[in-house]
Amino acid sequence: MYLHTQQLINEIAVDEPDPAAANALQEGLGGQFGEMRTMMQYLFQSMNFRGDAAGKPYKDLMQGIGTEEISHVELIGTTISRLLDGSPRYNGKKTDPVDQPGAKGATPLKIALDTGNIHHYLVAAQGALPVDAAGNPWSGSYVYNSGNLVLDLLYNLMLESTGRLQKCRIYEMTENKTARSTVAYLIVRDQAHENAYAKALESLGVNWGAALPIPKTNAERFPEVKKLLDQGLQNVQYTFGADDLSEAGKLFRGASPSDASQELRTEVMPQGFPMTIAPERREEFSPGLDPELLALIQATAEVELKDADHPKEAKK
Amino acid sequence: MYLHTQQLINEIAVDEPDPAAANALQEGLGGQFGEMRTMMQYLFQSMNFRGDAAGKPYKDLMQGIGTEEISHVELIGTTISRLLDGSPRYNGKKTDPVDQPGAKGATPLKIALDTGNIHHYLVAAQGALPVDAAGNPWSGSYVYNSGNLVLDLLYNLMLESTGRLQKCRIYEMTENKTARSTVAYLIVRDQAHENAYAKALESLGVNWGAALPIPKTNAERFPEVKKLLDQGLQNVQYTFGADDLSEAGKLFRGASPSDASQELRTEVMPQGFPMTIAPERREEFSPGLDPELLALIQATAEVELKDADHPKEAKK
Amino acid sequence: MYLHTQQLINEIAVDEPDPAAANALQEGLGGQFGEMRTMMQYLFQSMNFRGDAAGKPYKDLMQGIGTEEISHVELIGTTISRLLDGSPRYNGKKTDPVDQPGAKGATPLKIALDTGNIHHYLVAAQGALPVDAAGNPWSGSYVYNSGNLVLDLLYNLMLESTGRLQKCRIYEMTENKTARSTVAYLIVRDQAHENAYAKALESLGVNWGAALPIPKTNAERFPEVKKLLDQGLQNVQYTFGADDLSEAGKLFRGASPSDASQELRTEVMPQGFPMTIAPERREEFSPGLDPELLALIQATAEVELKDADHPKEAKK
Amino acid sequence: MYLHTQQLINEIAVDEPDPAAANALQEGLGGQFGEMRTMMQYLFQSMNFRGDAAGKPYKDLMQGIGTEEISHVELIGTTISRLLDGSPRYNGKKTDPVDQPGAKGATPLKIALDTGNIHHYLVAAQGALPVDAAGNPWSGSYVYNSGNLVLDLLYNLMLESTGRLQKCRIYEMTENKTARSTVAYLIVRDQAHENAYAKALESLGVNWGAALPIPKTNAERFPEVKKLLDQGLQNVQYTFGADDLSEAGKLFRGASPSDASQELRTEVMPQGFPMTIAPERREEFSPGLDPELLALIQATAEVELKDADHPKEAKK
Amino acid sequence: MYLHTQQLINEIAVDEPDPAAANALQEGLGGQFGEMRTMMQYLFQSMNFRGDAAGKPYKDLMQGIGTEEISHVELIGTTISRLLDGSPRYNGKKTDPVDQPGAKGATPLKIALDTGNIHHYLVAAQGALPVDAAGNPWSGSYVYNSGNLVLDLLYNLMLESTGRLQKCRIYEMTENKTARSTVAYLIVRDQAHENAYAKALESLGVNWGAALPIPKTNAERFPEVKKLLDQGLQNVQYTFGADDLSEAGKLFRGASPSDASQELRTEVMPQGFPMTIAPERREEFSPGLDPELLALIQATAEVELKDADHPKEAKK
Amino acid sequence: MYLHTQQLINEIAVDEPDPAAANALQEGLGGQFGEMRTMMQYLFQSMNFRGDAAGKPYKDLMQGIGTEEISHVELIGTTISRLLDGSPRYNGKKTDPVDQPGAKGATPLKIALDTGNIHHYLVAAQGALPVDAAGNPWSGSYVYNSGNLVLDLLYNLMLESTGRLQKCRIYEMTENKTARSTVAYLIVRDQAHENAYAKALESLGVNWGAALPIPKTNAERFPEVKKLLDQGLQNVQYTFGADDLSEAGKLFRGASPSDASQELRTEVMPQGFPMTIAPERREEFSPGLDPELLALIQATAEVELKDADHPKEAKK
Repeated sequence: MYLHTQQLINEIAVDEPDPAAANALQEGLGGQFGEMRTMMQYLFQSMNFRGDAAGKPYKDLMQGIGTEEISHVELIGTTISRLLDGSPRYNGKKTDPVDQPGAKGATPLKIALDTGNIHHYLVAAQGALPVDAAGNPWSGSYVYNSGNLVLDLLYNLMLESTGRLQKCRIYEMTENKTARSTVAYLIVRDQAHENAYAKALESLGVNWGAALPIPKTNAERFPEVKKLLDQGLQNVQYTFGADDLSEAGKLFRGASPSDASQELRTEVMPQGFPMTIAPERREEFSPGLDPELLALIQATAEVELKDADHPKEAKK
Repeated sequence: MYLHTQQLINEIAVDEPDPAAANALQEGLGGQFGEMRTMMQYLFQSMNFRGDAAGKPYKDLMQGIGTEEISHVELIGTTISRLLDGSPRYNGKKTDPVDQPGAKGATPLKIALDTGNIHHYLVAAQGALPVDAAGNPWSGSYVYNSGNLVLDLLYNLMLESTGRLQKCRIYEMTENKTARSTVAYLIVRDQAHENAYAKALESLGVNWGAALPIPKTNAERFPEVKKLLDQGLQNVQYTFGADDLSEAGKLFRGASPSDASQELRTEVMPQGFPMTIAPERREEFSPGLDPELLALIQATAEVELKDADHPKEAKK
Repeated sequence: MYLHTQQLINEIAVDEPDPAAANALQEGLGGQFGEMRTMMQYLFQSMNFRGDAAGKPYKDLMQGIGTEEISHVELIGTTISRLLDGSPRYNGKKTDPVDQPGAKGATPLKIALDTGNIHHYLVAAQGALPVDAAGNPWSGSYVYNSGNLVLDLLYNLMLESTGRLQKCRIYEMTENKTARSTVAYLIVRDQAHENAYAKALESLGVNWGAALPIPKTNAERFPEVKKLLDQGLQNVQYTFGADDLSEAGKLFRGASPSDASQELRTEVMPQGFPMTIAPERREEFSPGLDPELLALIQATAEVELKDADHPKEAKK
Repeated sequence: MYLHTQQLINEIAVDEPDPAAANALQEGLGGQFGEMRTMMQYLFQSMNFRGDAAGKPYKDLMQGIGTEEISHVELIGTTISRLLDGSPRYNGKKTDPVDQPGAKGATPLKIALDTGNIHHYLVAAQGALPVDAAGNPWSGSYVYNSGNLVLDLLYNLMLESTGRLQKCRIYEMTENKTARSTVAYLIVRDQAHENAYAKALESLGVNWGAALPIPKTNAERFPEVKKLLDQGLQNVQYTFGADDLSEAGKLFRGASPSDASQELRTEVMPQGFPMTIAPERREEFSPGLDPELLALIQATAEVELKDADHPKEAKK
Repeated sequence: MYLHTQQLINEIAVDEPDPAAANALQEGLGGQFGEMRTMMQYLFQSMNFRGDAAGKPYKDLMQGIGTEEISHVELIGTTISRLLDGSPRYNGKKTDPVDQPGAKGATPLKIALDTGNIHHYLVAAQGALPVDAAGNPWSGSYVYNSGNLVLDLLYNLMLESTGRLQKCRIYEMTENKTARSTVAYLIVRDQAHENAYAKALESLGVNWGAALPIPKTNAERFPEVKKLLDQGLQNVQYTFGADDLSEAGKLFRGASPSDASQELRTEVMPQGFPMTIAPERREEFSPGLDPELLALIQATAEVELKDADHPKEAKK
Repeated sequence: MYLHTQQLINEIAVDEPDPAAANALQEGLGGQFGEMRTMMQYLFQSMNFRGDAAGKPYKDLMQGIGTEEISHVELIGTTISRLLDGSPRYNGKKTDPVDQPGAKGATPLKIALDTGNIHHYLVAAQGALPVDAAGNPWSGSYVYNSGNLVLDLLYNLMLESTGRLQKCRIYEMTENKTARSTVAYLIVRDQAHENAYAKALESLGVNWGAALPIPKTNAERFPEVKKLLDQGLQNVQYTFGADDLSEAGKLFRGASPSDASQELRTEVMPQGFPMTIAPERREEFSPGLDPELLALIQATAEVELKDADHPKEAKK
């Protein structure tokens, strides 16, 4: 069973809207090696896990990372949404402001004709889509779950490393701070998960030598990443369990497979950062409420506000 | 951010394995109107939600139902997995037992050639797949999120009703108790969600008259469903929030849109039912560990067991 | 602009329901070489046609055949629908009657678990689907329209011949009279269209020698086909124009490319056969109206019946 | 059975070619909520309709709208084709003229490298494609036909509203008059169909209050739309029947669900606007006839012209 | 550049036709982890390879295995073709003989309605299809080529192991000797390729310990596999180079990563086994030549036979 | 069985990188009428061929062309790879050099946001992808193999002509010499294959008159093509057989179907042009080796270099 708390797992930096960066980030959300995929793959691997009691630490590891991935979907989806929201004054060009609804035949959405994915404006209302950066919808055929433990771990290691590789490339495509704050965070967390699967394979006898991490990166090249590495985020596995039953910590501990001088450790989940609600965009008809409908909502809200003082009774 | 607790949201009844029923249930998991779709659709609608403070109850309603849907994915996925596991003595036919690994050229997986989806045995190791009952992989193109509030609510109402319709049909396809326990539970929860979106549209002025519920069903036809309806599960919205910030209760209350004589109410999430780990299936090479690998795992476990007595230190 | 008349282009013979035959016919409806494809391909070729006045006969030929194909979609879709409807006593097996709605947990849709496409019962309500016989949804990527006249005609000739080849194979798969009446009709009409495109290519200098028709068939093998060939249906091009502007007759005339002893000719569209409405299937919740909803419909109908006596006024 | 008349259902305004606008319009043709989809969905719902005599007005409503949608496919396809045809001097930029065939290694199709969908120039010959604005081919999996009457009507209402929402967004993307003439017309007709399905649901007891139309629009924002609304086109249902058997008028009458002050009414189909044939584009090899082939066509035409004086005899 | 020799890479044992086994083998041909995928993946990895001179042994390894995979496509495709050809007397059931063309309305293809993929009879003429065992067409999205050397090798190791795992499962599904001769051969060659990629990773510092081979198998369970293992086929890398430029042998040598007691070695390609042409199947219209067309072919052949005595002149 | 020689079938001219041209060429590689498709179609047609001894020349023709197509895949893939490699100074614009790896948060891959397919930089490492120019992955559903000889030949003729048509259009999109050298070569070879299938159909009685070649082209328009036509490359069929068993020469001889004044002939395969390895691109982490991994490779190489002096022993 899953619970939700109205907090984002990492803070999203504030910067100008940037549809091109938003589209690049779609690979990290709905791409073949993006967060929707890791999330779904680990949830399926957990549900279908075989292996009696001896396997529980492996199952718990997959389930734990899978749970974190849902929060990553939420983080990167929200980031894309913000990058698409409103007037794109980015790149120095002044274009028609998207901020004003069209009037007398104006074209407030003209920008859509020249962006990475016109669907961001035409199908979604300046929000994230379950597609990759080339516009391909996410597919269930991505999910890999052979049932063979060594193979599933090997795939997961490759999957996290590929996700990290692609995010390093996305980092090199944009200077937008909103985009980079999320990309940098995910680069480091992907490395933590790379460590987790590498470590699990170590418990089955594999020695990684100098092969990890994949890709080899020089932190100096990526200042935002370096900051997080210095905090050791690549060595932490979170417990997102509402209970305390996970045995993943039996695997994720000891020397890091990608840097033997560092120690892996388990921590309780981060406290999170508050979520906000995106503003209305009238040119998208989103949410598209006219005064009459707003009055109806207001009426409901007022009735409820009285009850809200007594939530205990209201909810019984 | 999401948390996970090692409990299933509903109990899965015990019965014989039944690959044909398992395949029918795939529609409820990976079908166009299945649980993966509702889950993803509501998560995207929440992330991309627009509408300032007045919209919060609507956003929270979608987010809350979306969170429950992740647990439904877990429930129906686990159910499929159990229905596929082991010797199918169902329907009175005795076939080659799948329970024994092949030896000297035996064919313990012969049954796979005559089932609804050969991938259950060939690609997965007798586990659930992210596909529908006709074998089509789940697609991101299913997700609907127009950003227009009335439209998104209308779609969600239609989506829950279609999910419920299909599950009523699945119910009529099999007598297997394992399958029916989950199908009956989801029929009733789909109705609760149908009520939720119908109620939200009532707050925007729509009056449903006699049109709901969809489909019209006579509980006597479905004994397992009737039991849950008698408990009033169709009138309850759960809070899966680890915090107490949801305003969904402002909408989900008062008379039920599908039966004015009943009252809607919010409750904390159910306590859940314990999860188990599926047994090894040697003919699938799942998990596929030989004595040497098992010994390595055992060694790791023993080291850890000592630490497990002092989890506080181990996790710092 | 298109018009519709409530008549089927050919009569559908009455026989037992037969889900297996229905599924084979899906290839002729939603397959890569089925009627949805020919219809869409010719509509696109007409819309995008280039070639000034000299090209009009070619455009009109494609448009005319394309219009006929919509009626073929209607014919084969209705045929599939009938083959799926109700109790399948076919093949001598007595199974649970689908005719009775389930009661007390009965399984009136059990048959769905053992048919060619479970979606016929689970997603559709015993109706046709826009998919092929292997369950693949129809795709826009099938449509071919290069804009080059010789190439488009060559493709169309190949397309009609492949459709005809597949229908000859379907004929050999089932003895069901409902299925065969439609399959036989389409085999002959496909040959008429094969003749049309072959003839158009003759006007551009190609001589087909002994290569046509494709496939070579011996009418004696297919009695239902022979009957229609004896009527000369393979040599007729219909005009489905509400006006009289088509110049297709400039091409479709003279000796048949597949049999020089026969003469091609143009005729006005056939008179057609009356359409009926399929009966309710309660186990599918289709249309799913309870007494309360039926009463509402009845009320509307009664009000309208009075007006129906004075349609002129009612419609002004 | 279907008939065709060589008239477009609405007039297409003349303006410069505009590949970017053409690509945006593809969503309205081949998108998930475009005209190919509404057309196919209603044709399938008609073929598979269940409900005995009481259901006939509902079936006829779907069939009637479905028939109109084929003409919409024709209208928007032709519009896209015109927007793609020839020298794009749009947006003030002078680029290499596409009007001249390349010579000595020239690059008359260079513009294709910088357009929304390179396939418009590379696969089609500056013509419409059965894909959406992001290039995804139309899919049969879009078609929804549950068989449950309330559910199918609810879906159709949502479908028309989403189509209308997307076309309002497209309107805001381009000032091109060719594009806008068709988009404005379809916005108003989508509203007529929204009214039709909403009205049908009213006959089943639903009261829409202030929720319609979706999206809420202010006609003043869209001058081309306002002109058509002033003519009342949103309140008219056409009969495209070659016969007079439709009972759809029993439902589509009385007060409009989206504006109670207006009255719904049925009319015979519009007279239409003449169709033309697109000019040759030599750089696309379309139709690609050289003098030798043109001479052959001319020869055929001449023979036929003589017959054309006596069409009665020629066609018998 | 590629050359072809009219030899199969392994001998296909003779046994009864068996459509069910044929369909299971489709996973090994057109599945996500089948031979078309390995072939394409390695060809793309070779074409796009980066790494200057130091990388040549790695590129040559991928290219060499990729070339072998084309012969595997040929082998498994031919095997499927033979398994589908003709009268299926398998499983003890006597059905209508497929061997005789239909006459007077007979149904020689009736068997198609009850097989794993009806397309084998309806679309192909009892031949192999580029799809997997669940009927999904092969997709270019399967191909993985990140450009990162460690990652590509890791993926390839996982890919070969998954292919081997699935073939071990297919082996357990059928006793058909035709199917097993090819499956057993590919199990052993997949292991050779698994060794190749594992060895290449060893050169980059990884030590596999006891993790390989994946899956762990006990040769005694699979007698046909054991025979080939005893010949040491899992330790051989072939050179399919028409020239002698490959440096793959620098990597594929020394102790086997899956069994340190065995030595890896390079050999020239096997001599192969003669290919035959499948017989005509008249009920499929394949090749569908009537006496007139056969006479034309015969005429061509006779003219040519005379020339065939002087091939030197004929070819200059 | 297939062999490979480390030679490209044609020389690739040197010019500036050009991502836009690279993307256009993707249609020729992974498009519906590109080289991957012709290759796969002919390999399947060869494997599944039916027709006894009389059919062997037809089978050999398909097999022979199919083998050449693999070399075309290699040629066009390599060409795309080169067009994507490095600093795009094309079109006169100076952008951020892709040549330098990012440092201190630089954006060396910024160009990816404004190219035809962002995946070229994000998923591949500036290499070719198995997709078309609009980004759609190659699909197995493209492959056509009806088993009917006339139909398969007709389709193949249409396929080659469409490939040629599209390449003529690509030629008109770019002046880049690298792109044009490959496009011009393939235009001429497609014509050779068009001739081959047209000739095979002539042997079955078809006379093509003035219809070929498709499209009609005027060599003067395409100087690079003219040069190759003057060499007569459109009249040559290569033998890529390592043995001398092909009977394709019985069909491919005599007057050319597209120009009766020219004679068809068979030749042994061309000698080819040397292949090179693409340089490292550090900003793509491709191959991504750090000094430590390079040292390991170097160590392996050195050990091997000694053996390389004695290849005979090393390989035994």
